[in-house]
Amino acid sequence: MGYINVGIIGFGTVGAGTVEILQKNRQTISSRVGSEIMVKNIADLDIKSDRGISVDPSILTTDALDIINDPEIDIVVELIGGVGKAKEYILAAIDKGKHIVTANKALLAEHGKEIYQAADEKGTGLAFEAGVGGGIPVIRALREGLAANNIKIIMGILNGTSNYILTRMAQSGLAYGEAVREAIALGYAEDPPDLDVDGTDAAHKLALLISVAYGAPVSFDNIYREGIDRLTPEDIRFAAEFGYSLKLLALARDLGGKVEARVHPAMVPLDHIMANVNDVYNAVYIEGDFVGQTLYYGLGAGRKPAGSAVVSDIIALAREIQNGVRTFIPPLGYARFKKTYIPIQSIDSLTSEYYFRFSAVDKPGVLSRIAGILGDNMISIASVIQKERKVNGSVPIVMLTHEAREKDVSKALKLIDRLDVLTDKTMMIRVEEA
Amino acid sequence: MGYINVGIIGFGTVGAGTVEILQKNRQTISSRVGSEIMVKNIADLDIKSDRGISVDPSILTTDALDIINDPEIDIVVELIGGVGKAKEYILAAIDKGKHIVTANKALLAEHGKEIYQAADEKGTGLAFEAGVGGGIPVIRALREGLAANNIKIIMGILNGTSNYILTRMAQSGLAYGEAVREAIALGYAEDPPDLDVDGTDAAHKLALLISVAYGAPVSFDNIYREGIDRLTPEDIRFAAEFGYSLKLLALARDLGGKVEARVHPAMVPLDHIMANVNDVYNAVYIEGDFVGQTLYYGLGAGRKPAGSAVVSDIIALAREIQNGVRTFIPPLGYARFKKTYIPIQSIDSLTSEYYFRFSAVDKPGVLSRIAGILGDNMISIASVIQKERKVNGSVPIVMLTHEAREKDVSKALKLIDRLDVLTDKTMMIRVEEA
Repeated sequence: MGYINVGIIGFGTVGAGTVEILQKNRQTISSRVGSEIMVKNIADLDIKSDRGISVDPSILTTDALDIINDPEIDIVVELIGGVGKAKEYILAAIDKGKHIVTANKALLAEHGKEIYQAADEKGTGLAFEAGVGGGIPVIRALREGLAANNIKIIMGILNGTSNYILTRMAQSGLAYGEAVREAIALGYAEDPPDLDVDGTDAAHKLALLISVAYGAPVSFDNIYREGIDRLTPEDIRFAAEFGYSLKLLALARDLGGKVEARVHPAMVPLDHIMANVNDVYNAVYIEGDFVGQTLYYGLGAGRKPAGSAVVSDIIALAREIQNGVRTFIPPLGYARFKKTYIPIQSIDSLTSEYYFRFSAVDKPGVLSRIAGILGDNMISIASVIQKERKVNGSVPIVMLTHEAREKDVSKALKLIDRLDVLTDKTMMIRVEEA
Repeated sequence: MGYINVGIIGFGTVGAGTVEILQKNRQTISSRVGSEIMVKNIADLDIKSDRGISVDPSILTTDALDIINDPEIDIVVELIGGVGKAKEYILAAIDKGKHIVTANKALLAEHGKEIYQAADEKGTGLAFEAGVGGGIPVIRALREGLAANNIKIIMGILNGTSNYILTRMAQSGLAYGEAVREAIALGYAEDPPDLDVDGTDAAHKLALLISVAYGAPVSFDNIYREGIDRLTPEDIRFAAEFGYSLKLLALARDLGGKVEARVHPAMVPLDHIMANVNDVYNAVYIEGDFVGQTLYYGLGAGRKPAGSAVVSDIIALAREIQNGVRTFIPPLGYARFKKTYIPIQSIDSLTSEYYFRFSAVDKPGVLSRIAGILGDNMISIASVIQKERKVNGSVPIVMLTHEAREKDVSKALKLIDRLDVLTDKTMMIRVEEA
């Protein structure tokens, strides 16, 4: 049996998981591939710490260039993260004709065009299954399993940290801050958890899904994003009363020529399969024009699931090397790399249903003044709950709208929030009927 | 742009869906593949009926051999079903060196060994994504996305007809017969619906999943199967009281050296994601040793979803042809074809939790006699519901057991059903805690 040499740059959580799988499942993997996969070198600034696995110390190096410049290494696995050194290493390795495996969604989301183009020009493989949804093979589903389809909708719960926080708020009524502290204590969140809870991480992953669905890079800054930090357990309770669950959704929709792309908290019908994705689990819902509705579900992060995705990419590239082909399926799943960015529709042009929670003084006529402004802006009300109980000295008026335009909603809420009877900024959450 | 010629044998529902997708999504597909996919011929005994798509009549033939013997055809798509002619055509096409796409789970489940072996010896591709779970790319998930893992558990809702019937019984309290008639009227079930409701169809699909998970053929008759026809709305209600949903499950579990493989109605905890798979939807839950729990969900049948899977296989094989490789990934996902059947554990050796519904006369002491026999057979009771209302003149005694051995359960139920206080055969349903 032949062998294929792999070099791993970055010996952190995912790097250690990758090495562990290649060791423990060596036999299964080689019987699937038909070659042995050998970890020839691992580069990390820290080559002393115990990773809980036994590695021959002679394969450790502090210099990534030992891997990039080694002509015997076929596949370079980049797992250091970030957009600085990682980019430099990946471009250098591509230049040397190496196949690349990476889990670096931030890099591909923000600098994808340059990297996809370099891989395309050099004809090297570039695989990033671990960049989205941990071990869930969703990049593969788009590149291969659903390749017969035009992708109409992608809807993802892509950030396990946020999903854990929202699940705890929903199931135990915790306040946002309490749920965050719990997530940090359990190791599910960084301290502070900024990129996870502000929508950036989910938007990175959405950018990758869009690129693979439509075959071109995405201009990351055009993806609208909003975090979960302003949500309250009260909103989650009201959502449930209306028949919805509150999730941080990443959403893309084919508009023909351009794509809707946004990350924000959203209300999902309780009987939708996405509403039942809880804790640190991720899920991606994909609708194709022929396959209809599909869903992919699993653990979105962690040493083992992410390692599983990295090794599946190593296996795919090893199968290419063994068959003597280069880029059997190009990185974005399309035969020809399109250099132009996929046009993203501005959030202002969105049409959606909305949930509003107004904090108002308990006086007659308040609802009529609010409804008047909504009506003036062509926003029609679908249902209203006006509770008697006071929250922080004011009365919540909660409503769902029919379909309205985001632009009109922004304008109306600005006017409403200026009313003297409003005691706090209005909470607005988009509703996804899916 | 080059082109790749496809011949389709069988112009029924899935055949028409396949042609429709290749026509309507021609541009998307060719931009993904880098070649045009041309339907050179379609063979069917009926070349007159309207399939709702426009096809050049000159490509229609009533003779499958026109396709099999055509040296210009690269990929033969078998969609006639059944285990007679279909087997003959596939083996003949493999012999001619054609790549094969098929949706024929019955054929592969019952005669897989011969076909896998022929494809292996000839070095041709053999793809059957449409054989399991309609458009859900679950064969691919096992062959590629989860290839780093040893597969521990596969749990599938694989028959949309049965799932529709059980959903209707659960949601509207219909009797089994009423739900079946409704399914037939809606076109979700054949009349009579035998293979769908007796577990055979799901077992065919399970055989394929097991073969791809473990890389060898399965002796189909060793898969235990039981249908849904004996279930009552009452059992579904009791299941809900205990916190479970009733599903027709196909189950495989790695026992190290052998595999548990069975299809039967089972109780699934209501908060398990499988419990929320309703109507004609299918889902496959796969647990790998590193990826953990994953789920794949979508429409399990129908012209469009099945067509989507067939075309995804055509695309995969077209990519191989274009890259000048043969069997980039072998049919079962392992480099070397294993001719020996995967050992299947007998159902008698199963250990499970059980639900029993005893139909007994309303007399004191009945429960104690039942419990005595259970105890004698090392079956311990976890909880009991003894309702006062009478059903058909007898009182249902419903219980859940702790883990017990199937062999003991069979023996105990045989003894209990002989008691003079029992008015009907005892209902036994296995409980899957997952």
